Amino acid sequence: MSASLLEQLIEAFRVLPGVGQKTAQRMAYHVLERERDGGRRLAEALGAAVERIGHCARCRDFSETALCATCASAARDTHSLCVVESPADRLAIEQATGYRGLYFVLQGRLSPLDGIGPRELGLDSLAARLAEGEVRELIIATNPTVEGEATAHYLAQLARQHGVRPSRLAHGVPLGGELEYVDRGTLSHAFGSRSEMP
Amino acid sequence: MSASLLEQLIEAFRVLPGVGQKTAQRMAYHVLERERDGGRRLAEALGAAVERIGHCARCRDFSETALCATCASAARDTHSLCVVESPADRLAIEQATGYRGLYFVLQGRLSPLDGIGPRELGLDSLAARLAEGEVRELIIATNPTVEGEATAHYLAQLARQHGVRPSRLAHGVPLGGELEYVDRGTLSHAFGSRSEMP
Repeated sequence: MSASLLEQLIEAFRVLPGVGQKTAQRMAYHVLERERDGGRRLAEALGAAVERIGHCARCRDFSETALCATCASAARDTHSLCVVESPADRLAIEQATGYRGLYFVLQGRLSPLDGIGPRELGLDSLAARLAEGEVRELIIATNPTVEGEATAHYLAQLARQHGVRPSRLAHGVPLGGELEYVDRGTLSHAFGSRSEMP
Repeated sequence: MSASLLEQLIEAFRVLPGVGQKTAQRMAYHVLERERDGGRRLAEALGAAVERIGHCARCRDFSETALCATCASAARDTHSLCVVESPADRLAIEQATGYRGLYFVLQGRLSPLDGIGPRELGLDSLAARLAEGEVRELIIATNPTVEGEATAHYLAQLARQHGVRPSRLAHGVPLGGELEYVDRGTLSHAFGSRSEMP
């Protein structure tokens, strides 16, 4: 067995999320046995992405260019700004909804214990943007976790300071879910926030 | 969002086994958000492995050098030769057992319908090796599937033609398994191959 290169490859695969020793081995063998071309493409795409993908100067999402395609687009509604924690959240919203406004990606959430404050999340540049007066609604789509909720409250305050209307994604029972299996917190919230049927 | 590079990366991750669109997205974001160094290392390891790992001229296992470390080693027992289907099988045996002999990696199994015959598995070079007279036992460790069994029978014939003793891994109830959950074929085989207790 080729000790070094193969072992290095198996070790390197373990940086991927959810990949342990066994999976890394399987990936390495799979690529070497059946997917050399794909492996070559992956190596190139990964190298290029790691070197050349930075952050959009305006929304902090990943971007190869100084301004990302969404921020640079003339077709988006500049009156709505949706704040998300991560690029993956932004993508999920973009794919699931018909939202045509702009985004702001925090790349994290307020977490004072980890030293993540407003500055680390780029909230100074968000404040400057709200001060411009173009944004009318700040859609706060941080995760419904303790830290995400704290971040949402902070963002709502910031919005109100600049005369911008803050809104928050609806929480409740997921569509297609069964009440029996919904967690207590969600069910309690959904019950309290019930709305009259038309 | 950076359309091209990020999308290329997500697409490229899908060559890995068991990785679909969602997992590929998660991997790409994980690397970009938190593991740029690891991503760089993976790109390099993958590029180097795909370009430089070939096959050992003697055992057909993966190797960076013409002869792999095991085949080149003076510490291995040259009288035993263990035939496996894949490098992963070879690694599993090497890690689980105290086997100190040599290996021969078929890189497949006999499968006439797919056009995989003795030549594709390198059985001509295996025959030449058996003819050298150094090997006394051919340990046949192909998988217990229909094709693996057919391959095993072929290999056993080949061994006998050269006066080499063929042997096969024991089949039966796995250690720690419960009879209730063992499949019928295995149970029937284990029952028929029962041995007297000492």
